[in-house]
Amino acid sequence: MTRVLVLHSVGLLRSALMALLKAEESFDVFASGWCTARRQAECLRPDVCVVDLDCPGAATLLEREQDEPGAEARTRLVVLATAGRPGALRKAFEARALGYVDKDGSPRRLVRAIRQAAEGERFVDESLAFCFLEASRVPLTAREMSVLARAAEGESIAEIARGLHLSNGTVRNYMASATRKVGARNRIDAIRISQRAGWV
Amino acid sequence: MTRVLVLHSVGLLRSALMALLKAEESFDVFASGWCTARRQAECLRPDVCVVDLDCPGAATLLEREQDEPGAEARTRLVVLATAGRPGALRKAFEARALGYVDKDGSPRRLVRAIRQAAEGERFVDESLAFCFLEASRVPLTAREMSVLARAAEGESIAEIARGLHLSNGTVRNYMASATRKVGARNRIDAIRISQRAGWV
Repeated sequence: MTRVLVLHSVGLLRSALMALLKAEESFDVFASGWCTARRQAECLRPDVCVVDLDCPGAATLLEREQDEPGAEARTRLVVLATAGRPGALRKAFEARALGYVDKDGSPRRLVRAIRQAAEGERFVDESLAFCFLEASRVPLTAREMSVLARAAEGESIAEIARGLHLSNGTVRNYMASATRKVGARNRIDAIRISQRAGWV
Repeated sequence: MTRVLVLHSVGLLRSALMALLKAEESFDVFASGWCTARRQAECLRPDVCVVDLDCPGAATLLEREQDEPGAEARTRLVVLATAGRPGALRKAFEARALGYVDKDGSPRRLVRAIRQAAEGERFVDESLAFCFLEASRVPLTAREMSVLARAAEGESIAEIARGLHLSNGTVRNYMASATRKVGARNRIDAIRISQRAGWV
């Protein structure tokens, strides 16, 4: 039996994904939201953990995973990804996820990805291949990303400057370079483009 | 048998919701994305249609539904809603949806909502009650909403003015009043707050 833990922030979709995977007789399926994710993982010791990259908590979980030592003991990650969000895909790659399943694909692909990940093998949906190429080239620097992320939360230039210990002029420069680099028309456009791509 | 059509933009989640509902023996379940939604509804003649309000295409579908005449012949709508998005809830209400299910609730609630809607009865999850209260008071005028929606897509003041046949000054005024009304600190914050609430 393969022990599978499904992590999703939305209760109903979590139950639905569970129902989908329970149809596989060789899977023992559990589900959890983000708050209890760590405790559940420790307690259940799943073979494979399925994470939806579009959930608000996914980025934090993947960052934590990235810092975990010991490649052997860790749970194998299978991520559900949306094509066109290279930033999210990159975060999953950096957290050493094994399976990459296109959310717009067939459920059979997810089942196959879980089986392969349980064996320690990689699985990548071909529809995500182009997105990986885009993910390999990060368009923004870490500073530009954090300036954009704060602006997206409604912070003013002065607030961002205080928060990051920079001058207002430097923040404005980061904003301008980020806007130029993602091919945006203005700041709001830069935030929109970067959020859709999953960089911010 | 109750014929249920699940509408969702994400293939895998569509299949997962289908798997969840198929466990009910009295349901005959089908699923579709947005492109084929109308054709599927005409061809399958479902008793109940389940729509996730957080899908990008949901608003357009609900608007179209609103204009349909004949309350008798129409498919009964059950919507999956996220608490804290009164704007989305209001659009569902205006499209005369019968069932309102909290996406963070138990799958049993969804099953009950579908059963009640099939009988022509209303179903509202109590966790959405406060959200209904908020939805009863639209904070923005139609003009303010369309200005914000265009700004959110990255249009400049001049572009919005041209698109809506207004002067630049009038667009700036709408922006300022919208920002004040939603309690935002600046334009980006106003867009963020309005999008999260589902008004834009």
